[in-house]
Amino acid sequence: MSAVIQLIHRGGIASAQGFTAGGVYAGIKTASDDVFDLGMVVSDVPAAVGGVFSQNKVLSPSVTLSKRRVADGSARAIVANSGCANCSVGPQGLTDAEEMTALAAAHADVDPEEVLIGSTGLIGVELPMALVRQNLGNIALSDDGGNRFARSIMTTDTHPKEVAVSTQIDGREIVIGGCAKGSGMIHPNMATMLSFVTTDAAVEPSFLQQCLKSAADTSFNMIDVDGDQSTNDTLIVLANGRAGGDEITGGTPAGDDFQEALTYVCVELAKEMARDGEGATHLVEVTVEGADSLHEARLAARKIVSSLLVKAMIYGRDPNWGRVMMALGNSGIEFEESNVDVFVNEIHIVHEGMSIAYLKDAVVSSMSEEEVRIRVRVGSGEGSATAWGCDLTEGYVIENSAYST
Amino acid sequence: MSAVIQLIHRGGIASAQGFTAGGVYAGIKTASDDVFDLGMVVSDVPAAVGGVFSQNKVLSPSVTLSKRRVADGSARAIVANSGCANCSVGPQGLTDAEEMTALAAAHADVDPEEVLIGSTGLIGVELPMALVRQNLGNIALSDDGGNRFARSIMTTDTHPKEVAVSTQIDGREIVIGGCAKGSGMIHPNMATMLSFVTTDAAVEPSFLQQCLKSAADTSFNMIDVDGDQSTNDTLIVLANGRAGGDEITGGTPAGDDFQEALTYVCVELAKEMARDGEGATHLVEVTVEGADSLHEARLAARKIVSSLLVKAMIYGRDPNWGRVMMALGNSGIEFEESNVDVFVNEIHIVHEGMSIAYLKDAVVSSMSEEEVRIRVRVGSGEGSATAWGCDLTEGYVIENSAYST
Repeated sequence: MSAVIQLIHRGGIASAQGFTAGGVYAGIKTASDDVFDLGMVVSDVPAAVGGVFSQNKVLSPSVTLSKRRVADGSARAIVANSGCANCSVGPQGLTDAEEMTALAAAHADVDPEEVLIGSTGLIGVELPMALVRQNLGNIALSDDGGNRFARSIMTTDTHPKEVAVSTQIDGREIVIGGCAKGSGMIHPNMATMLSFVTTDAAVEPSFLQQCLKSAADTSFNMIDVDGDQSTNDTLIVLANGRAGGDEITGGTPAGDDFQEALTYVCVELAKEMARDGEGATHLVEVTVEGADSLHEARLAARKIVSSLLVKAMIYGRDPNWGRVMMALGNSGIEFEESNVDVFVNEIHIVHEGMSIAYLKDAVVSSMSEEEVRIRVRVGSGEGSATAWGCDLTEGYVIENSAYST
Repeated sequence: MSAVIQLIHRGGIASAQGFTAGGVYAGIKTASDDVFDLGMVVSDVPAAVGGVFSQNKVLSPSVTLSKRRVADGSARAIVANSGCANCSVGPQGLTDAEEMTALAAAHADVDPEEVLIGSTGLIGVELPMALVRQNLGNIALSDDGGNRFARSIMTTDTHPKEVAVSTQIDGREIVIGGCAKGSGMIHPNMATMLSFVTTDAAVEPSFLQQCLKSAADTSFNMIDVDGDQSTNDTLIVLANGRAGGDEITGGTPAGDDFQEALTYVCVELAKEMARDGEGATHLVEVTVEGADSLHEARLAARKIVSSLLVKAMIYGRDPNWGRVMMALGNSGIEFEESNVDVFVNEIHIVHEGMSIAYLKDAVVSSMSEEEVRIRVRVGSGEGSATAWGCDLTEGYVIENSAYST
């Protein structure tokens, strides 16, 4: 990998050329200072599009509509709201999603079929369309509206999650930027995950879809998932080609560079989601190496980072490594217990499956840092993967025991 | 099913004829009033034996040894300890498990090969064998020692879990009794589950094993599991035939009656485990009916009762039924969203996949009861199953963030 990836200060979804964004407070959520709940992103030219969506059997019609339109391979805009998931409301859900995209299309002067939609919030409540009709036209679209858009999709997030990078591909600077909302971080996909990414690179549509899937597999799909997905999970990328140059395709150095930069953006957004888990006080990074395959390394890393006992142990700064062994043993991957080594913040605490002498105070002390890294070597295979999560605190319980009332 | 099952007041693992039990404080756990940590159950004649054990890839040598001996089909005694899981300690673990069973065999005057073992507690710490050697011989075995045995296996349980029943089989009274320890109830099998059951019925060994597996599938395997199992999970049944009569076999009315009574005992113990989950304030019972098969009904019931968002909602007495729909959608079973009905404590809150008018105050009020029942009808199939769990409270986090330190 050779691309130099540079972070753009205060960058986000409107950093790439030809994109504008914005958000307003429409009254869908409870009002407080600086709250937005309805936002749009628009490309000034048609963009190639890729999407990854929830596999839940119960889907929000907002997801159903976006999936259908992403399949066309081209789009111009995204409209998104928080405060209402537009899910489990019967046929009215699709009617409302279609109307919301039509209103957004009118506001951006594009075709309704070119508008995608994402929703997050309470399930079982219809979208308050009167509020949407009244306020959507007030969304000011601008180059610096990315932060307002990012705020529009927040639910229990404590801050917006945005990142943008620039990199050189075929001697030409391209920008990739995006934002995300997460939270509900014990099994985050049970809470809605929304993420939207834009780029001014010119990318061949089927390769763009393939890149997005691959990036999702090492980022959003590696944050504490346990196989669960919400009714509304949505990840969309728009590539409008405004940076110029030939279309980037797969199997080329340019394709590899694009993949690397897109994955970087997705990993940064995913880590921000993990870090901002409900009630979280630590970001936890679990790396499993030496597994028989990438698939097995991913399975084990996710299982460990998702273990409630591991998560509670990290909150308590308690290097009770038996819980790591137990989670590993439950992951279903192949390994020999007598080959397992465990490191906490690079302090070696288990060797060949057994506790070794270590300075417990040093481990406890290192677990006071905001980031806790657990590295587990399970053998001598080629498979290596990293997963991210957060600790489990009383704060999670308090937030989730009173959400709708 | 025709057997009349009668609860025995203060019954437990020593209620059946020919069984004695006891427990002592050996110093494996921290001392406080009424603490025991080492116990034994003995049959005065050889007993048929069945066992169900953890599928975790990392197993305590206590499990390894018991699995091997259960395969012989006959046993005389069980020795169990809390405070130490005897797991991830290298070859010393099996050496210690063998010595502990030999000490128990000497105390009960039986063959060491006829003694089974169960351990629960911290992983990665060797059994303090000096304490075991010094104290095991002090275990007083008696008809009324079942409660002391039940206390010996407790960890974070707030009280011992015991039950015994009598029933008539072929005109003869037989008794089945047992005890269990649970806790760690978000995913209880990640904490150790130990349960031991005795009966004076005469049961053909392979049928006994089959009955135990079937009973486990509708009881311990239906409490909030999510596929996770600890390194030490152990369920053992001993049937010593002291009630007399012919050996009970499968495919007979007597076999059906025995299965029903054994399942009853296991379900009661499992419900007690769920009710006593760490920090729990509610027992949650989820029934899924109308599924395409028993397997699908079980999958869905377990998924709903295991959902952290559902569990937190019950603690908060918040009928946020969207979370039930989300968990159902993640279970992987076949259903149509528009066929789903949901009842909370028999109050109908979702009809044909959509929220219906209901008295929210009545639902909230009913959720104040110690037991909360969620019934989900997913279609018109024959599959029906019930799962049990508990709510998620701050108490769970507090208990699990400081366990080893």
